[in-house]
Amino acid sequence: MESGTCRVYITGVFPELEEGRFSAKGLAGDVFTVEADFLSDSFERVSGHLLIRHETRQEWERVRMEDLGNDRFRGHFRLTETGFYVFTVEAWIDHALTWQENLRIKLQDRQSVEHEIAEGIRLFSRMAEDAAPEDKPRLEQINSELAGTDTFHLALSQEVTDWIHRYPVPRHRTRYRRELTVFAERERAAFSAWYNLFPRSTAPAKGLHGTFATTAKLLPRMAELGFDVLQIPPVHPIGRQFRKGRNNAAVAQPGEPGVPYAVGNELGGHDAIHPELGTLDDFRHLIRQAAAHGIEIAMDLAVQCAPDHPWVSQHPGWFRHRPDGSIQYAENPPHKYQDSYPFDFECDDWENLWKALRDVVFCWAEWGVRLIRADQPHGKPFLFWEWLIRETRAKYPDLLFVAESFTKPKTIDLLGKIGFAQNYTYFIWRNTKEELTEYVHELAGKSAFLRPNFWPNTHDINPFPLQSGLEPVFLTRFFLAATLSSNYGIYGPVFEQMYHEAFPGQEEYLNSEKYEIAHWEWDRENKLTLLIRLVNRIRKENSALQRTDNLTFVHLPNDALIGYLKVHENGNQVLCVVNLDPHHRQSAGIYLPPALIGRREDEPYLVHDLLTGNRWQWQGDWNYVELDPAILPLHLFRIEYPVS
Amino acid sequence: MESGTCRVYITGVFPELEEGRFSAKGLAGDVFTVEADFLSDSFERVSGHLLIRHETRQEWERVRMEDLGNDRFRGHFRLTETGFYVFTVEAWIDHALTWQENLRIKLQDRQSVEHEIAEGIRLFSRMAEDAAPEDKPRLEQINSELAGTDTFHLALSQEVTDWIHRYPVPRHRTRYRRELTVFAERERAAFSAWYNLFPRSTAPAKGLHGTFATTAKLLPRMAELGFDVLQIPPVHPIGRQFRKGRNNAAVAQPGEPGVPYAVGNELGGHDAIHPELGTLDDFRHLIRQAAAHGIEIAMDLAVQCAPDHPWVSQHPGWFRHRPDGSIQYAENPPHKYQDSYPFDFECDDWENLWKALRDVVFCWAEWGVRLIRADQPHGKPFLFWEWLIRETRAKYPDLLFVAESFTKPKTIDLLGKIGFAQNYTYFIWRNTKEELTEYVHELAGKSAFLRPNFWPNTHDINPFPLQSGLEPVFLTRFFLAATLSSNYGIYGPVFEQMYHEAFPGQEEYLNSEKYEIAHWEWDRENKLTLLIRLVNRIRKENSALQRTDNLTFVHLPNDALIGYLKVHENGNQVLCVVNLDPHHRQSAGIYLPPALIGRREDEPYLVHDLLTGNRWQWQGDWNYVELDPAILPLHLFRIEYPVS
Repeated sequence: MESGTCRVYITGVFPELEEGRFSAKGLAGDVFTVEADFLSDSFERVSGHLLIRHETRQEWERVRMEDLGNDRFRGHFRLTETGFYVFTVEAWIDHALTWQENLRIKLQDRQSVEHEIAEGIRLFSRMAEDAAPEDKPRLEQINSELAGTDTFHLALSQEVTDWIHRYPVPRHRTRYRRELTVFAERERAAFSAWYNLFPRSTAPAKGLHGTFATTAKLLPRMAELGFDVLQIPPVHPIGRQFRKGRNNAAVAQPGEPGVPYAVGNELGGHDAIHPELGTLDDFRHLIRQAAAHGIEIAMDLAVQCAPDHPWVSQHPGWFRHRPDGSIQYAENPPHKYQDSYPFDFECDDWENLWKALRDVVFCWAEWGVRLIRADQPHGKPFLFWEWLIRETRAKYPDLLFVAESFTKPKTIDLLGKIGFAQNYTYFIWRNTKEELTEYVHELAGKSAFLRPNFWPNTHDINPFPLQSGLEPVFLTRFFLAATLSSNYGIYGPVFEQMYHEAFPGQEEYLNSEKYEIAHWEWDRENKLTLLIRLVNRIRKENSALQRTDNLTFVHLPNDALIGYLKVHENGNQVLCVVNLDPHHRQSAGIYLPPALIGRREDEPYLVHDLLTGNRWQWQGDWNYVELDPAILPLHLFRIEYPVS
Repeated sequence: MESGTCRVYITGVFPELEEGRFSAKGLAGDVFTVEADFLSDSFERVSGHLLIRHETRQEWERVRMEDLGNDRFRGHFRLTETGFYVFTVEAWIDHALTWQENLRIKLQDRQSVEHEIAEGIRLFSRMAEDAAPEDKPRLEQINSELAGTDTFHLALSQEVTDWIHRYPVPRHRTRYRRELTVFAERERAAFSAWYNLFPRSTAPAKGLHGTFATTAKLLPRMAELGFDVLQIPPVHPIGRQFRKGRNNAAVAQPGEPGVPYAVGNELGGHDAIHPELGTLDDFRHLIRQAAAHGIEIAMDLAVQCAPDHPWVSQHPGWFRHRPDGSIQYAENPPHKYQDSYPFDFECDDWENLWKALRDVVFCWAEWGVRLIRADQPHGKPFLFWEWLIRETRAKYPDLLFVAESFTKPKTIDLLGKIGFAQNYTYFIWRNTKEELTEYVHELAGKSAFLRPNFWPNTHDINPFPLQSGLEPVFLTRFFLAATLSSNYGIYGPVFEQMYHEAFPGQEEYLNSEKYEIAHWEWDRENKLTLLIRLVNRIRKENSALQRTDNLTFVHLPNDALIGYLKVHENGNQVLCVVNLDPHHRQSAGIYLPPALIGRREDEPYLVHDLLTGNRWQWQGDWNYVELDPAILPLHLFRIEYPVS
């Protein structure tokens, strides 16, 4: 309970997710910023501190918060380690600062200030009493100087302000009513380039079943292209009952491989390995080989069972039974998914079900996995994910969950708050300049809890614009994903080769790998693969491209051209311009006020196109861009100075 | 702690003020609306209830909430009494509704539904078991009919939906984590017309000191003009030490009356009556006389003391002492207010200080006062007001506090949240169409906690536009206050007579009544008094003008013309149009889509100007308005149909 003498009311603390139930997103190595409203009942000065500590330490670090005006205050703190940090804020009426300010005003107004000087002496003698031994002499000296004559210069000095900051006398301080947390994750949470493939489609010859070993052979090229996450579908035995055939046929023909998401058969479930891919040892070897190339394997967590998964007979209570006793398969009427049983998370035995799923994650973690893509996490209870992530963080704090969540916006937001390190987004359906601008702005407002991952395609979604097969569309969609967002991914073999045949009328691939084994020519180079390699290298060399919440759109009076500036605290500044029109050359003035890049109005600077090596000298508010889709519909400028 | 089987997550509950610490604003007799996000992990149907009860009852009333789409739900409840209502929300995956919907989809898709019918039988037999005795027969009958043949029509019927709504089976319901409150106030909180005067200036002859008796003589006219609140400055003995003179002179001349806000002298403090105004009995008589005219007296609570207030010697610890032992008078450097001592709310004896101030309020309440205007409440601690209002509501639930809070926006908001029934606003400084539109929109977003009171002037503020003295400015400023906001007030004698002389260069009145006794000719009629009388009558006859959060601005492509529609649930619709230009006739098309007033595109209707009696027939999206400030710069249309 607050004492009645606490005169500051604290509210509007940011970031605070659902009253502190969830942790804000942080990144080890990055600055974490906290804001709060400190409302006071007075014109007197208010001061406040951000209090923060790593969960493993007891002592608060105190950071003085800056007054932004209109009762808003802000403090910064650099997170140095991964894990939870606890923080809160504190504020008080700062009588000492008020004293100094009133003294200044009264002197300017030529009022008598004898009372103020006496007040200052009282203040500094109290400060000297409480001060550390090494500070006492100087504080006592100040005190006696204040008692002398002509002491205004000293009383108003920055030194005195600094002492007031150092030894505040917050007798009636208000501590915010809650301690909040931020979870600092490792760098990969914020900066990653994902490549999705099906290991079974990696065999060197058509008609063969690919393996972990043939997948490993692709690692050098993948690394050379600049990817650092290899995302694969479930690697477990595939159900045989109600197995789906090519193009989602209701019944598989003999010999058809089935959908990897129909997890489990008599050989095992989520902790077993599909024998045609290799052994568990082979898989662990693949994880190590990938790591040697700087690539992490992202496992796919499909929380469901094929009808012949061992759990179906071992734990019938985990599933929903129809009145005739049969188990209810997945459906979203009128669609039926007979090859997959969803869990009944309302069942009486829910606690054992949760534990079994957690043990799957822990089992994978023991194999060496540190990245898990949750398949459609919005289809399973939020409470389950909250608990699973909490349990996992306690044991494997570097294990990141990524939500493949193409669902309703508030659900995506909640998954982010719960603790998914990244979320799939609607980027795949945002194409026009207006759509992209609005959506990226919306995401920017959510950066405390949502780290977007942009995919131009996935193995489930072949978006209509890509179905055109137009090379400029593939180039721009890739480029937008990789530069608007620091996390992005492609469903690789299909995207690279600009494969675009769709199941008629749908945003699905024809002859999808989900239902059959494909064969790809992995070494074919084209304009897109050249661009991918180049952009991935540029991303690694330009820290501005390694974050997502550092973006400002720039004005280009042409709806076909979109431009955005990204800046990093280290000074790196990147300006991207994209021609969204795949057919015509587009040009426009580009409005980039020099103040936005820390330049004077009359100061020239260079824009250095890292894609082509071209350099232009720019100056003033307006410059000019022109992009031809037949050549390259993209600029990726680094802003450089001085002009040599 | 939630069970793991609760699959709905509840968030975004509205209204919820500071996590339920403060009560939302409600009005006895009005509908109270609650919204919430019910996030589920499924495509299954979600249902939810608003649970609400008056604090004096134990049983919840349950109201089914409507699904607004995008996971948002809304419920309505009519508050019938004053006092606190407690409410919360509850939601669950509605398997029964999902069953009915899936059945419909599958039938449309010509799928077999034998499992669904069996499921329905299971459902209704469970429902029949739990049902009230009078409902059992029909439910059992439905059940046996479902078991028959050709039962689809029944299963999909509205009757079955209604039974599902009536007997939900929310085995795994989520209850929101908090119970919230709304405080239902009496009508005057939402609808009031204030008249501010100084009783000491009501004497019939110049040079005399007015009294409660001379004030009472003005009541009939005030009632006839349509006012229902008479707001007066403090009525207590006025301090003699450091008394201010005319026009805020530092030293009063002998015989000058002083500022009523310098409360207290040797005759008493906040619970005493200034003898020149009359006795306590006279004052209680005034309160009764006013009530007989439908007028309430609003007392002025100035939380401060003149240097000779009895508390200064009785409780020196309640004040701040300077190093020389003297008490610190009020200042806001470089300004000094030597005639007033602020309380030191950080003092050790703060609890007794709080109690003494509460006792003042209780004392006034015993006199019969039910409206208190808090003078500059932002200068006293929020915790104090929160406690004072809580204590007062417990004993005098119909006593309303109004905050005279011309201060920073977040502070005004917090005072509203704390429980002030109305707040003074920035209306006094919002003049252009853009300013007014933006500000009224901002206030609309705060209606859960802030009831604005619009004043065109106050005895402290003579705003620059009124200093012009132009009649159309007075007319429009009055009209805007009285129609944009259902609560408004005027500093009456000055405003009525369009007095506008200012202290040079400031927004203060020259020869302000705060420092001297004025004399007014109370019966002088002019165009403005005619308008005041008329508008107050129209406000009483048109319920749309009795609320503030029911306003929509209409488009008028002319920056000098502002128009707004106000509607009431009883069908009353009022359209106001104001010419803000005091010099020129202005005209424009007015865009009012008929759908906005519940009309068809081709349907004519009447706009009946209640100020002039003129009627026009309008139709379609666009009509025409023209207003001449030399005649009357205002329309106050009631929308009427059918066209006779």
